[in-house]
Amino acid sequence: MTESAVQPPRSVVTRKDVARYAGVSTAVVSYVVNHGPKRVAPATEARVREAVRVLGYRPNAAARALKLGSSETIGLVIPDNSNPFFSLLAYAVEDAAAELGYALLLTNSDGNVAKERRNIRNLAARQVDGVVLTSVLFNPDLADLQAAAIPSVLLNHAGEAPGFNSIGVDLVAGARLGVEHLISHGHTSIALAMGSNVSNDVDGREQGWLQALAAAGLPEGPIVRGNFTRDGGYAAGQRLLAAANRPTAIFASSDMQAIGILRAFHEAGVSVPGDIAITSFDGATEAEYTWPALTTVEQPVRAMAAAAVAALVGRDQSQPPDHQIFPTALRIRQSCGCDPIGTVK
Amino acid sequence: MTESAVQPPRSVVTRKDVARYAGVSTAVVSYVVNHGPKRVAPATEARVREAVRVLGYRPNAAARALKLGSSETIGLVIPDNSNPFFSLLAYAVEDAAAELGYALLLTNSDGNVAKERRNIRNLAARQVDGVVLTSVLFNPDLADLQAAAIPSVLLNHAGEAPGFNSIGVDLVAGARLGVEHLISHGHTSIALAMGSNVSNDVDGREQGWLQALAAAGLPEGPIVRGNFTRDGGYAAGQRLLAAANRPTAIFASSDMQAIGILRAFHEAGVSVPGDIAITSFDGATEAEYTWPALTTVEQPVRAMAAAAVAALVGRDQSQPPDHQIFPTALRIRQSCGCDPIGTVK
Repeated sequence: MTESAVQPPRSVVTRKDVARYAGVSTAVVSYVVNHGPKRVAPATEARVREAVRVLGYRPNAAARALKLGSSETIGLVIPDNSNPFFSLLAYAVEDAAAELGYALLLTNSDGNVAKERRNIRNLAARQVDGVVLTSVLFNPDLADLQAAAIPSVLLNHAGEAPGFNSIGVDLVAGARLGVEHLISHGHTSIALAMGSNVSNDVDGREQGWLQALAAAGLPEGPIVRGNFTRDGGYAAGQRLLAAANRPTAIFASSDMQAIGILRAFHEAGVSVPGDIAITSFDGATEAEYTWPALTTVEQPVRAMAAAAVAALVGRDQSQPPDHQIFPTALRIRQSCGCDPIGTVK
Repeated sequence: MTESAVQPPRSVVTRKDVARYAGVSTAVVSYVVNHGPKRVAPATEARVREAVRVLGYRPNAAARALKLGSSETIGLVIPDNSNPFFSLLAYAVEDAAAELGYALLLTNSDGNVAKERRNIRNLAARQVDGVVLTSVLFNPDLADLQAAAIPSVLLNHAGEAPGFNSIGVDLVAGARLGVEHLISHGHTSIALAMGSNVSNDVDGREQGWLQALAAAGLPEGPIVRGNFTRDGGYAAGQRLLAAANRPTAIFASSDMQAIGILRAFHEAGVSVPGDIAITSFDGATEAEYTWPALTTVEQPVRAMAAAAVAALVGRDQSQPPDHQIFPTALRIRQSCGCDPIGTVK
């Protein structure tokens, strides 16, 4: 029988069909498909596998989930998958989950608290094996997950959230890296373009900026606040240019903001890094292709995503929650003034 | 009893617990939770809903899926969710699916045929209600989905794939828009930066470029081929600058390529659009923030994503497959020479 002679079946193939084709009981089919609990003789197993292949049998995922009490699925809630930093995060979480045999249910909250809650409730109702949450809030409401005994981990979370697993980077140390680098270029008037945060606490990046300036005995430059987005950065850039105390350098709290600032500066004929130098935060791929290319504080996205998945599926959930902080690294390109522009690499 | 006094339950709450709390039968709980099949008196329904809320009951999704024969889930296979065009597509598909009550299982194929097959097989085994596939191949292998009677739709698919639903844009007409616009600026030497395609057929964007040149009686400019990525565009840009017949304008088959070309030109001190004008294809958000901002042929991503989801869940699958082609629109910015650079908008 050649493979091309097999027609797609009209209706869904059942375990019974496989058993009949292979000449075994349905229990034996189940042992082979579920890798146990009983062992099956190699010759019989081969016959069952051949039947599965020829008939195109798919074990019923719903029945399997009911039995195992697991859907082998992880839920992800992020603000916006079309934001490059979050899409990189989503990609890395999907990859880390797939590595362990888990599929990823992706949901976007659009940075909206109500939608985030809806997504969490929906994932809880679907009985995913765990939820990775990049929340809009510092203390998100995870009651629905707790009620369903579904483990969760807060990703991209710099502070310690009592009672929950969380993973983030050292924002303070990272921002210090970015600001100290500008100081090493001789800048003494360094502004901060800060993304707006729903938390009442001072963001770690703002703290790091303050600490680096204080350590160098420098005055605080101007602060402009807005969204973490390209648009937010564009508005921030325009305001910085209009300010009386125009700085010679800027630390931006996200790459997207820095990209918006670059546009405002290009339009105004302000040269980067010649007139004003910039460093930023995140390490988005896009930052490598701006003009000039951005010197940025890079987050170890892949390692963080792998740690988030491991916190859900490889971990005894009766243990106290774990808070992991990853270090960042400065990726030096051109916007800081290090690399002469015009050099083809 | 106040809400704060309710402790999260130690074990998962069952339908029996809800029935006991509300003083009804488990069947009544089921009617309320599943919206039928029998009607329940409003007062009783309110009592059940209160019990569900207080106890934190979640209907068992696996049991529900087994009963309904549906997981209310759609699978998506894309090459790379960290590529801005595909992340925009994934975002739009998630949004369209959520609108109809479906969750999205996201998988990345990394542009790898074997990984794409694995993802499809995995989604089939999970018995999703449908699969949206942005394939690496023109004729992907969908036998696993057919065998499991799972409907599918090829998204971002310009040609007609016999036997399958597909959705794409009119690449030929779109490319003509982009090239004709360069011609309207007086250019007579227009190059093509073309992404490499696994298909043997000439890509619609290449056809559109050829047609627009022929219609204007212009000679074919140079063609550089490479990846659809920023890196691919960067290499293409360098090659175009080194060529003996340097063009005065370029049509790039993706925004990402155009972004790479811009970097190569910036590094070489070539001015855009002054020395060489550029138009590109896709309409990624990033294209709005390049320097200069890219004039690009925009794909209606949201409409295409909504159509893809509708092809799976709102459609009689016994009908012959449907092939939908969406129109594109030219989004005019600065790289073509229309908009004077330096104008603050």
